[in-house]
Amino acid sequence: MALITPSRRLRRTPFSDGVEAAGVKAYTVYNRMLLPTVFESVQEDYHHLKSAVQVWDVSCERQVEMRGPDSARLMQMLTPRDLRGMLPGRCFYVPIVDETGGMLNDPVAVKLAEDRWWVSIADSDLLLWIKGIANGYRLDVLVDEPDVSPLAVQGPKAEDLMARVFGDAVREVRFFRFGMFDFQGRSLVVARSGYSKQGGYEIYLEGGDLGMPLWNALFDAGADLDVRAGCPNGIERIEGGLLSYGNDMTDDNTPHECGLGRFCDTQTAIGCIGRDALLRVAKEGPVQQIRPLVIDGDPLPGSDRPWALTAGGRSVGQVTSANYSPDFESNIAIGMVRMTHWDAGNSMEVHTPDGTRQAVVRDAFWA
Amino acid sequence: MALITPSRRLRRTPFSDGVEAAGVKAYTVYNRMLLPTVFESVQEDYHHLKSAVQVWDVSCERQVEMRGPDSARLMQMLTPRDLRGMLPGRCFYVPIVDETGGMLNDPVAVKLAEDRWWVSIADSDLLLWIKGIANGYRLDVLVDEPDVSPLAVQGPKAEDLMARVFGDAVREVRFFRFGMFDFQGRSLVVARSGYSKQGGYEIYLEGGDLGMPLWNALFDAGADLDVRAGCPNGIERIEGGLLSYGNDMTDDNTPHECGLGRFCDTQTAIGCIGRDALLRVAKEGPVQQIRPLVIDGDPLPGSDRPWALTAGGRSVGQVTSANYSPDFESNIAIGMVRMTHWDAGNSMEVHTPDGTRQAVVRDAFWA
Ligand SMILES: Nc1nc2c(c(=O)[nH]1)N[C@@H](CNc1ccc(C(=O)N[C@@H](CCC(=O)O)C(=O)O)cc1)CN2
Ligand SMILES: Nc1nc2c(c(=O)[nH]1)N[C@@H](CNc1ccc(C(=O)N[C@@H](CCC(=O)O)C(=O)O)cc1)CN2
Repeated sequence: MALITPSRRLRRTPFSDGVEAAGVKAYTVYNRMLLPTVFESVQEDYHHLKSAVQVWDVSCERQVEMRGPDSARLMQMLTPRDLRGMLPGRCFYVPIVDETGGMLNDPVAVKLAEDRWWVSIADSDLLLWIKGIANGYRLDVLVDEPDVSPLAVQGPKAEDLMARVFGDAVREVRFFRFGMFDFQGRSLVVARSGYSKQGGYEIYLEGGDLGMPLWNALFDAGADLDVRAGCPNGIERIEGGLLSYGNDMTDDNTPHECGLGRFCDTQTAIGCIGRDALLRVAKEGPVQQIRPLVIDGDPLPGSDRPWALTAGGRSVGQVTSANYSPDFESNIAIGMVRMTHWDAGNSMEVHTPDGTRQAVVRDAFWA
Repeated sequence: MALITPSRRLRRTPFSDGVEAAGVKAYTVYNRMLLPTVFESVQEDYHHLKSAVQVWDVSCERQVEMRGPDSARLMQMLTPRDLRGMLPGRCFYVPIVDETGGMLNDPVAVKLAEDRWWVSIADSDLLLWIKGIANGYRLDVLVDEPDVSPLAVQGPKAEDLMARVFGDAVREVRFFRFGMFDFQGRSLVVARSGYSKQGGYEIYLEGGDLGMPLWNALFDAGADLDVRAGCPNGIERIEGGLLSYGNDMTDDNTPHECGLGRFCDTQTAIGCIGRDALLRVAKEGPVQQIRPLVIDGDPLPGSDRPWALTAGGRSVGQVTSANYSPDFESNIAIGMVRMTHWDAGNSMEVHTPDGTRQAVVRDAFWA
């Protein structure tokens, strides 16, 4: 692995001092911000995440805030998911598409009020798309990036830890809902969500000055729970089938190809900029789709580029994320597979840096 | 320095194999793509750049292509620089601003034809802003990211090296102009430009498959010129006053604050989305501006965040880039300085990780 050169352009976060003190070993860059990737090792971090509780600096999940009378209309223009039934206090996972139905991002939308929304973005400057649309359609809405930095608390003991810091009421927050909770006199959005399948919360810290106090409060309260600094885990998220924009899909892909058809209400999402294109896709169906795959042989290295999938010498797709799973004792992967081969049980070749292996489609993700 | 975890999201380039073989030691991430930052050491790379010739993988300077009848109109909507006099074959450095006059990027615009443009972007997804504007204003234009990867050839011996590969006609290309030159049967845009003050060219490689052949051709032709793999140099670019978007300015800043007022023809750039806001700025002038600064004392470390500038206990700006210059035997810096202190000779305190130092405004950059 190469080194990363520090620069202001690769932004630090309100929690960076804590992350460094916890001994972070490696980073990635996400939305031009530092995102930790390893503390002990990816495998040790994995076992700990699945058995205890971790605090994750996911500040890089930047918010785009929309405020003003046209914000709900704008929000619906961005996504094929029907937002009419969404009440304040709810979070929705929403594909964002351009006029061709290509995925621009797959954020979590947070409805603060009828006229105030956040979208908690994956790795693309969605702010610029939303600003461009708001300007071009002359909408009455203010669009910017507020000083909000999510801190995730993930793992089976997350609820106990959170209750110690925010009180027992936090136990009542349901999946993909949020409540307002007090910390040092400030009222924060606390949602039951996060980029793992181990359960947990995301605290949307408004105001970076409270970053280290919040970080320290969680570690002080959780010492006996073995709370540790962690980060989205490259093994666990594949087990759970959590997609990564830029890895598993790009703007070349439709939501349907990404297996996100269940988040598209293309008929009723009236106003969505990509609706016409997606009506076509929804009718004909995609010709390739995201699938879970098992790859045989020894543990594989992480991937820094797509690995070709072939059958009978012909391309049938690509593996976009792969890792060795200790719990499932096999190489687990996410791939984009052509229709001819996407049914569970289908076998094909995958061209890895360690040579050609067999890959088999699974019927479901692991967790 | 921490490690960087490989992932598809941090895109490789058509030249990555060559960069690795040349022994790259560190990277940054720029437009979600790997950009080398160190080969021998920043200081050794610096001396070599100023005395010989280097080949730089600047694929991360992605192109946004605009094609179709409305492309020139769209281009003028994006920038306050008057583009009426720009002929095909010319490159223009253009501030890109939003409706408030805030900088969204500072790319090089390349006019291929009346109805075909590239913008060679700095580190923000300008593609999304341009797509949003094109969609919102219902322009007849196609906007996308083509398979184009710039390769820069920089240094005093760049012209000699380029002439060996592309023929002597390449010597006739003037600054910020381009010609079409043949390489292995393909016609490539070759411009006299680049992110250094040492002179040189940028080859806009269309079609990644020719990446390694082009890389190898340059190294084969230049062995006796001591050609080496290099990259934008953090010392040399400060000496030259070349700004870095995300480091030296953000969307909070106007072009005038960035010292880019000379690229704003706000009166005549009719159609520019930020024109109204910038007319106001142009009239009143900015209250802070980019300045070259010398910082006293021992060589300073690189900066990963802005360093506060104060005078009499009050904030007067911030240093946004700094490095030790071997040739000028001092710490050289770029800062955003308030009007009260921006005149040459003014002295103030700068708060560095190595303690408080004196900083003095210079009358000009070093090169
Ligand atoms: N703040 C927040 N912001 C984010 C992420 C996050 O993690 N939390 N992650 C990135 C966005 N991508 C995802 C992908 C998956 C999920 C996710 O959680 N999916 C669940 C639930 C989806 C649902 O049922 O609505 C699943 O099981 O697929 C959330 C964000 C970036 N922004
Ligand atoms: N392809 C190309 N694309 C780029 C860069 C580049 O480097 N070349 N660099 C980044 C954009 N920023 C700059 C900053 C400065 C210059 C530059 O070269 N400025 C000269 C000349 C400006 C002029 O006179 O027009 C100067 O002396 O200031 C070019 C791009 C990203 N994209």
